[in-house]
Amino acid sequence: MPDYIEFWFEFASTYSYLSAMRVETVAGGAGIDVAWQPFLLGPIFRKQGWDTSPFNLYPIKGEYMWRDVERHCERYGIPFKKPAVFPRNSILAARVACIAMREGWCPEFSRGVFGANFAEDRDISSPEVITEILNSVKKDGLEYLSRIKFPEFEGLLREQTAKAMNLGIFGAPSFIARGELFWGNDRLEDAIQWYSGKGD
Amino acid sequence: MPDYIEFWFEFASTYSYLSAMRVETVAGGAGIDVAWQPFLLGPIFRKQGWDTSPFNLYPIKGEYMWRDVERHCERYGIPFKKPAVFPRNSILAARVACIAMREGWCPEFSRGVFGANFAEDRDISSPEVITEILNSVKKDGLEYLSRIKFPEFEGLLREQTAKAMNLGIFGAPSFIARGELFWGNDRLEDAIQWYSGKGD
Repeated sequence: MPDYIEFWFEFASTYSYLSAMRVETVAGGAGIDVAWQPFLLGPIFRKQGWDTSPFNLYPIKGEYMWRDVERHCERYGIPFKKPAVFPRNSILAARVACIAMREGWCPEFSRGVFGANFAEDRDISSPEVITEILNSVKKDGLEYLSRIKFPEFEGLLREQTAKAMNLGIFGAPSFIARGELFWGNDRLEDAIQWYSGKGD
Repeated sequence: MPDYIEFWFEFASTYSYLSAMRVETVAGGAGIDVAWQPFLLGPIFRKQGWDTSPFNLYPIKGEYMWRDVERHCERYGIPFKKPAVFPRNSILAARVACIAMREGWCPEFSRGVFGANFAEDRDISSPEVITEILNSVKKDGLEYLSRIKFPEFEGLLREQTAKAMNLGIFGAPSFIARGELFWGNDRLEDAIQWYSGKGD
């Protein structure tokens, strides 16, 4: 069994934002490491016949979600600004995150992307914004934006999303703890508990 | 402001079962009363274009749900037997629950129905099963099965479902605490906290 929980996230997802900003604290408090796993929800949603977020397809659910996220941000002490565009195209950010995952700086980069999208209402599909975030975590923005096109990196995100599908993931965030799938920011604590107390 | 939280539930809903079996304990622990509010999800789902539970429409989500519910039952110490039919037709049970709500015995009757559906895998659309449950809570089963057809009671369930829609309810269970909507068994504690600490 791996000695960590997996945190599967999508940069366009509001509830992934909530988890991204607290997963290290919650897991760290239990002495558990976190493997950050970027992926795309789009291809998974399309398999279910959805061409956008279900929060847009079902406005009554969407309206509730925004209020729910706002309440959670307040409770967690996380800044929040409703993005002008939802869901934002997250492909570029997720591609970079896949390299970051390989190189070990995925958490700080990803928190930067989530903050840009959900605390600052910035366009995370823009190369300029991603370059700035890269620079803010002491990486050469221009270098990484060219690297994502290298053949060795190109397929990483596609592989991640395929892996997510194979794990039965259908939404974000999702957590894998000792082989068990937990879906939703509200299941983070359950995943930690499962990892700590069960399944040996 | 009302001095209670509202618990909106649907007898066919697995997560409503989880809440029904613990709402009195959780709310009672905080000194809060619970107003049990039966309604039907069917008409609300149909408005979203669904002809059955989304857990059936999206099997990957459904598979996860059954595992998630099983885990929760284990944690809460609630019995669970996966129903052979899902979702079960809940109209008859919900009609009786509307009268029970008026007369003040909705919680015990409803727990009986939920137990029949999710702990005993019995057909809650059957008049025999409902009669038995009524008798078990010291009500005359035959009498109530005829009463639901009285003109004064006939419209109660329709009114309840219309009320739910007006409140912005789109799933079950839902809770209303000081005018705020909370959706999902995992939001019960949030609703209690909201009622206790906020919104005065």
